[in-house]
Amino acid sequence: MFATNVGDAVRVPVSRRRSEFPQSRLTGKLAAHFADHSYDDPTVVIDLDIVEAQYRALAQGLAPAHIHYAVKANPEPAIVRTLVREGSRFDAASRAELELCLSEGAAPEDLSFGNTVKRVRDIAWAHAQGIDLFAADAEEELEKIAMHAPGARVYIRFLVEESQADWPLSRKFGAPAAQIIPLMDRAVALGLRPVGISFHVGSQTREAMMWVGVLNEVAAVWHAAIAHGHDLSVLNIGGGFPAFYGDPIEAPLSYGQTVMRLVRERFGDVPYVMAEPGRGLVAEAGVLECEVLLVSRKRPDDIARWVYLSIGKFSGLAETIDEAIRYQFDTTADDGVNGPCILAGPSCDSADVLYEQRPMQLPMGLRAGDKVHILCTGAYTTSYASVGFNGFPPLASVCI
Amino acid sequence: MFATNVGDAVRVPVSRRRSEFPQSRLTGKLAAHFADHSYDDPTVVIDLDIVEAQYRALAQGLAPAHIHYAVKANPEPAIVRTLVREGSRFDAASRAELELCLSEGAAPEDLSFGNTVKRVRDIAWAHAQGIDLFAADAEEELEKIAMHAPGARVYIRFLVEESQADWPLSRKFGAPAAQIIPLMDRAVALGLRPVGISFHVGSQTREAMMWVGVLNEVAAVWHAAIAHGHDLSVLNIGGGFPAFYGDPIEAPLSYGQTVMRLVRERFGDVPYVMAEPGRGLVAEAGVLECEVLLVSRKRPDDIARWVYLSIGKFSGLAETIDEAIRYQFDTTADDGVNGPCILAGPSCDSADVLYEQRPMQLPMGLRAGDKVHILCTGAYTTSYASVGFNGFPPLASVCI
Repeated sequence: MFATNVGDAVRVPVSRRRSEFPQSRLTGKLAAHFADHSYDDPTVVIDLDIVEAQYRALAQGLAPAHIHYAVKANPEPAIVRTLVREGSRFDAASRAELELCLSEGAAPEDLSFGNTVKRVRDIAWAHAQGIDLFAADAEEELEKIAMHAPGARVYIRFLVEESQADWPLSRKFGAPAAQIIPLMDRAVALGLRPVGISFHVGSQTREAMMWVGVLNEVAAVWHAAIAHGHDLSVLNIGGGFPAFYGDPIEAPLSYGQTVMRLVRERFGDVPYVMAEPGRGLVAEAGVLECEVLLVSRKRPDDIARWVYLSIGKFSGLAETIDEAIRYQFDTTADDGVNGPCILAGPSCDSADVLYEQRPMQLPMGLRAGDKVHILCTGAYTTSYASVGFNGFPPLASVCI
Repeated sequence: MFATNVGDAVRVPVSRRRSEFPQSRLTGKLAAHFADHSYDDPTVVIDLDIVEAQYRALAQGLAPAHIHYAVKANPEPAIVRTLVREGSRFDAASRAELELCLSEGAAPEDLSFGNTVKRVRDIAWAHAQGIDLFAADAEEELEKIAMHAPGARVYIRFLVEESQADWPLSRKFGAPAAQIIPLMDRAVALGLRPVGISFHVGSQTREAMMWVGVLNEVAAVWHAAIAHGHDLSVLNIGGGFPAFYGDPIEAPLSYGQTVMRLVRERFGDVPYVMAEPGRGLVAEAGVLECEVLLVSRKRPDDIARWVYLSIGKFSGLAETIDEAIRYQFDTTADDGVNGPCILAGPSCDSADVLYEQRPMQLPMGLRAGDKVHILCTGAYTTSYASVGFNGFPPLASVCI
């Protein structure tokens, strides 16, 4: 998710605090790795053990639902391979992501082509591979699927209104409540099998109880469709599973258990519930190493320094746009005295400023050449990096 | 320039209208090319003859100033090669851009390392290549340059306040007026040669007369520095040269002539005036071909359709963020009747919406599979593309 709306955080009871998070500062296997390794160019290091642990906790909490990892969060092959081994299934946004999953050992029947906007030749290709589960939110998309993947199973994406997420999604995806049954009827007329409904609760929904409003909304449409005669068997509860960026979040096991209790209370025993965590599985597994390029003050008496890093909005930290995500920083220059900084990236682009409206507190001793570690950067970093804006290489990635 | 602020367009006398622009619709060599070629994936085609013509017009207008092409606008090697042949010099943001210029035949003395934020090892490398002109806006940067490129020429970037550009720049680059002379003094103390001042009038400054306020501001500091004893010989007037996105702009020859008249009136005969056009040289040379993936309505009675293209914010059209740049579209599906659309990209990212606040007018007959040409896409498209967000390939580029 590329966040654009930062609501004021909804305050909820704290159930997991900073000190309980291995990623709230550089510790464990990642700390040991960076003690031994130094990277010339910005590099994110992914601890696959953390991916595995997050998967297991979330899978246990959400059972009997099946996890379909949202590959777009981080398409690193080693992550996909780890999750295949753990028994994960996958949600793909494109043919390239489907190919990646297949090449790493996923079975076609474990893949969902979850983009509601697909190229017809990609639909035909997926169908030929045996991939049989597609998302749609519009009549023209159903027509494309019916033509190029005849008889396929489809779920209709519902545009929910009740999100309590840190970043509710835009109106880009999904059909409104009144269109869901007409679209299912249309699917039947086209020879498709409308098996269910998908939705997205909004990115970074920090507490499970925040799902209640959206689940109520979806359940009403779900039961109406069944009453209308549709035999629904697939409930796709999407993503929204949170990662730790400083505000408290609920731990994955209890989060998953609560979500599934809420689902059962509203939907009964659905044959196939699928969840699509992306950020929630991989963000906390990543730590990014970069360096300070320059520390300066515009005027001698300015309170906030400008700190320019070797990584910016266009080389991996796109989610800082609108200061949406506030990453946690850990520096080797930590001398105990912090002060405010405006943080900016290395490019000759005046918009490549990471945090200015709410300056970041960083050590006063910070100087050009100091290493900086940015925590919880395993999701939506490498894949957002530009191919080489200003001649800077895209963010490198290493798995340990 | 990655635009974030879209001011209401300052209305000025029209000196060049849509019909005078070869790029305002698909014509000439580019039209002939697309008649014969079709691209499976989004591809921008650059007409090098247009690059050459824009260079010649601007160079003639700005003479005796020297053009240093801002490589970041489009680092396509064939563009750099064409401009080397034309006698252009270059402004680079990074070591990789400097290497590109050298490999395409530019001489080290024709290169400026214009990023005010440089890695020390890149400064040392550039110095070893014979590159001798560096930008700076802070004391720590001067110290880095003095250490790793002893005796080099530096120009101090001035943070101007009077921009009338469509997108004034942020405060990321430049020192305020009161710091310019102290920084020059510091440069001298460090053994550097502070030869001049640079500034940026703001991206997409559509008419030459809009430069007046900024030039007045810079001239005051320029003359004060000379009065203080600094022997200034380099005036770097930066970029801001416009491209045609629908609002009238002034033609490059008269634009350049007027800017230089304004410069002479305020600065006299400066030994070396340098200008750094990027967008103004290459934007109009590019046309991007993509396709429609889906046309839908959220509700049957919605006025605006949603049109999903095979290219979006994360695969090349980053400058649509905040709807800053409104590209011109040309489609094969043009049936004469237009209607409003919300335009969106192909990714599973809810922020990947190009135009929604001001819907775009496109043909009512538009359908999935139709080709769409996006005009004036030669600048800040390919290099902004992500490495593969959602599994979509970065924007391809072809030169003709």
